Amino acid sequence: MVQKSTPAAPPKPTPDSTRRSEKSRRAIYDAALALIGEVGYQKTTIEGIAARAGVGKQTIYRWWSSKGDVLMEAFLDLSEQAAEAAAPGQAYVIPDTGDLAADLRAVLRLTVDQLLDPVFAVPSRGLAAEGLVNEELGRRYVARLLEPSLQLYVQRLRAAQDAGQVRADVDPRIALELFVSPLAQRWLQYTGPISYEYTDTLVDYALNGIGSTGGNRREDG
Amino acid sequence: MVQKSTPAAPPKPTPDSTRRSEKSRRAIYDAALALIGEVGYQKTTIEGIAARAGVGKQTIYRWWSSKGDVLMEAFLDLSEQAAEAAAPGQAYVIPDTGDLAADLRAVLRLTVDQLLDPVFAVPSRGLAAEGLVNEELGRRYVARLLEPSLQLYVQRLRAAQDAGQVRADVDPRIALELFVSPLAQRWLQYTGPISYEYTDTLVDYALNGIGSTGGNRREDG
Repeated sequence: MVQKSTPAAPPKPTPDSTRRSEKSRRAIYDAALALIGEVGYQKTTIEGIAARAGVGKQTIYRWWSSKGDVLMEAFLDLSEQAAEAAAPGQAYVIPDTGDLAADLRAVLRLTVDQLLDPVFAVPSRGLAAEGLVNEELGRRYVARLLEPSLQLYVQRLRAAQDAGQVRADVDPRIALELFVSPLAQRWLQYTGPISYEYTDTLVDYALNGIGSTGGNRREDG
Repeated sequence: MVQKSTPAAPPKPTPDSTRRSEKSRRAIYDAALALIGEVGYQKTTIEGIAARAGVGKQTIYRWWSSKGDVLMEAFLDLSEQAAEAAAPGQAYVIPDTGDLAADLRAVLRLTVDQLLDPVFAVPSRGLAAEGLVNEELGRRYVARLLEPSLQLYVQRLRAAQDAGQVRADVDPRIALELFVSPLAQRWLQYTGPISYEYTDTLVDYALNGIGSTGGNRREDG
């Protein structure tokens, strides 16, 4: 998801060591993400992260209480970086140009880019895999990383309802799943290729319906 | 997915040991499914399956060449059992009563039942988790277990296109994802509760569209 979520808590550096701390924090995040991508969540350890980051174990324990905490913040940071790269300096919302279909197509295309970028995709897949079988971690991952980005779609769909472009009886939290979940499943489970054409198609089907009743037609080429 | 897929290859018993072989095969499947649910794919071994099933390792190796093969057939068998339980003696298709919405609602409700049944859900989650990080296994799982059941939706949607109930320009293989993938994601990733009301809503949104253009309205209460 292209989003900028709640900023990760800073590692509480002492004032005179801010620069060195920031460098260590970045090295720790990079090491944590690399390891979960390479060896999986289970085999990623604080010791391994410390060794790869070139810091002492105590440096990590000073800032975080568990492996899960380090990884969650590393992912929050990664999402922020991705969002900043996609839309430098912009607020963390889905654009509202007044054209719902165009706005959804644009943000889903950015998500396709992100899912095809190994820097984001490899660690994300490692975390998601663990979340499937480790329900507590899975629910934290959803609550802290996934749901905040889904709420951006909820806001955009609510605005579209206010503008009379989305049926008033539609629940935006369910509606967004018609285009977000297919993309997520294709990417996570290798059920099919992902592309701009694919996500554009999902937006068309979701907005206009696949049924031929009611005269709903594809509005754009 | 509620489906009856390609029957699992029989374990090639000699004629005079058919009954004993069938009993062993069943015990091996049960043990394999229980273990992947309890300890995950990685820690499930041929030795562990044999011990739990009360058979010798050689019995397993006589019939299957790898852990992955045993598990895949155990899952195929599990899907067949679930489909048989849901619709005893029926053919392996999605019903076609002429009412597409009703038929989709019915089959998705059966899928909800299946996903909420630990006998099916626990091992399926273990297999899916491994498939996320083990691409080769993931692709085999999709090809042998998931895609055949998705093709049943393709067939049903094609019939609906022939009957003029689904837009002619719609790709059925993508369209089915509008209701199948949201359910799969909620279940796999704990992104939300699943229920009949939820899947009924997905069918409504997918068929009629969430957009208010074109006069498409919810047709059923």
